[in-house]
Amino acid sequence: MFKRLCLIGIGLIGSSIALRARKEGLVEEIAIQSRRQETVDAAARRGLGDTYTTDPAEAVKGADLVILCVPVGAVGDITEAIAPHLEPGAIVSDVGSVKGAVVAAMQPHLPDHVDFVPAHPIAGTEHSGPDAGFPELFDGRWCVLTPPAGTNPEAVEKLKAFWERLGSHVETMEPSHHDMVLAITSHVPHLIAYNIVGTAADLETVTESEVMKFAAGGFRDFTRIAASDPTMWRDIFLTNREAVLEMLARFNEDLTALQRAIRWGDGDTLFDLFTRTRAIRRGIIEAGQETADPDFGRQKKV
Amino acid sequence: MFKRLCLIGIGLIGSSIALRARKEGLVEEIAIQSRRQETVDAAARRGLGDTYTTDPAEAVKGADLVILCVPVGAVGDITEAIAPHLEPGAIVSDVGSVKGAVVAAMQPHLPDHVDFVPAHPIAGTEHSGPDAGFPELFDGRWCVLTPPAGTNPEAVEKLKAFWERLGSHVETMEPSHHDMVLAITSHVPHLIAYNIVGTAADLETVTESEVMKFAAGGFRDFTRIAASDPTMWRDIFLTNREAVLEMLARFNEDLTALQRAIRWGDGDTLFDLFTRTRAIRRGIIEAGQETADPDFGRQKKV
Repeated sequence: MFKRLCLIGIGLIGSSIALRARKEGLVEEIAIQSRRQETVDAAARRGLGDTYTTDPAEAVKGADLVILCVPVGAVGDITEAIAPHLEPGAIVSDVGSVKGAVVAAMQPHLPDHVDFVPAHPIAGTEHSGPDAGFPELFDGRWCVLTPPAGTNPEAVEKLKAFWERLGSHVETMEPSHHDMVLAITSHVPHLIAYNIVGTAADLETVTESEVMKFAAGGFRDFTRIAASDPTMWRDIFLTNREAVLEMLARFNEDLTALQRAIRWGDGDTLFDLFTRTRAIRRGIIEAGQETADPDFGRQKKV
Repeated sequence: MFKRLCLIGIGLIGSSIALRARKEGLVEEIAIQSRRQETVDAAARRGLGDTYTTDPAEAVKGADLVILCVPVGAVGDITEAIAPHLEPGAIVSDVGSVKGAVVAAMQPHLPDHVDFVPAHPIAGTEHSGPDAGFPELFDGRWCVLTPPAGTNPEAVEKLKAFWERLGSHVETMEPSHHDMVLAITSHVPHLIAYNIVGTAADLETVTESEVMKFAAGGFRDFTRIAASDPTMWRDIFLTNREAVLEMLARFNEDLTALQRAIRWGDGDTLFDLFTRTRAIRRGIIEAGQETADPDFGRQKKV
């Protein structure tokens, strides 16, 4: 499908793309770039690419598909650095979890002779770095494309086909709608997970060792996403500020109502909510986005 | 270890106790009671016990170990009903997730000739009912005993040995401390999980079908505990009100600080928290309370 794929950044997502694209024979050559030599070396040890460099300008030369796989706070500077070296006709994309800010940061730098198709694969684990990737990461997960108005439809189709071959379902969306959807399905969940893990760690009445021992009561479920990459998540909150604050306000309103129900002993309000929420999980399982095994299937392993 | 075990209530916990106690040969006979004939029939179909009844007074006759496995809101009335029929020397226990309120509700009804040893196995899945139980549920999990002052130490030792044979580690604690520990490790996590699932379902700007499709970004992790039994959880919040409200206030304080950091673009505050929280997950994995597999080990299955 592509002659030369250039991956700028080679963490969990970049390395998973490299492994799957190679496996499927989607690209003839893979050029890998990372800011840190240490990461480039780790990628080389795993044999993820054909060429390796810390220089983004060098990496994009001759590439007909360039994907930025870096925290969203870094895409603007990188785009500026690579812009003069991009091949005419190349597709330039990314994998950022925020789309409005990414489009705003990248588009002004890009020359007219490339096609810009922002993308966001909604897949991941709590592990990061080039050793964390695996080729099945995108299987059955959704990838959202947010092409700006006027984007060459052929480039959109080609990138869609690429992501489908990586295992994804693909949907196209307005950047601003994407950012709202992700604020509630991903960003606010991460924020409250990070928050409760922090709250628990800071208590005086309950020790950290007690929190760890008795985590099976529910707490441990939150620690998984609260172990996600700190730089990536800092950038998400800074760049999707408006949508996150809006969804957080809704969450807080609802939580205040529950708090009040507890204080006043209003069991019916609690019971009604707790009954409704079961249906949502069933829907997610039916949508193929969650395992139906009890306890995520981890029960027998721990 | 015991001649006749009586289980009052036969949901996830009761059925798991029955299966494991039988497997380990800890009891000669198991008497099963449930309020609803339908549940009694389901338990009988699985062959969980030797005798079945909807009458708690009948069930406890001749039992030297009686365990109440019902929502914590129901233990007071049941204890009153069984009290006159309890065998002298019997150990009376429970499995409730709140201990202060359970002790207060049960103890006044109990005759002097029985030993009261409240217990809380910190184990479970999001499934409920007699078909949800399995014998390995308690393996490696903690069970907290909260014997009131003056309890016969032999009874405490005997119940401890019983729970160890069911697979648990056992710890003894003051009821009030237990309720504080569980408020942060279990009750508040459930509350915020229920809450965000409710918030997401009620949005107008993002559809329920979008929430389900894109749940892999983190949201789905919360839906597991938000699918837990509604009656059980309503009772927990109503009976552990003080500790839950206290921990919730801490959570809210911390969340307000994060919200402010996002609004003012304070990336350092976010980054510092997001770095600290990783260590807590490592601690839980090292404590044997969580799988080290990425994505709870579910990644390849969905």
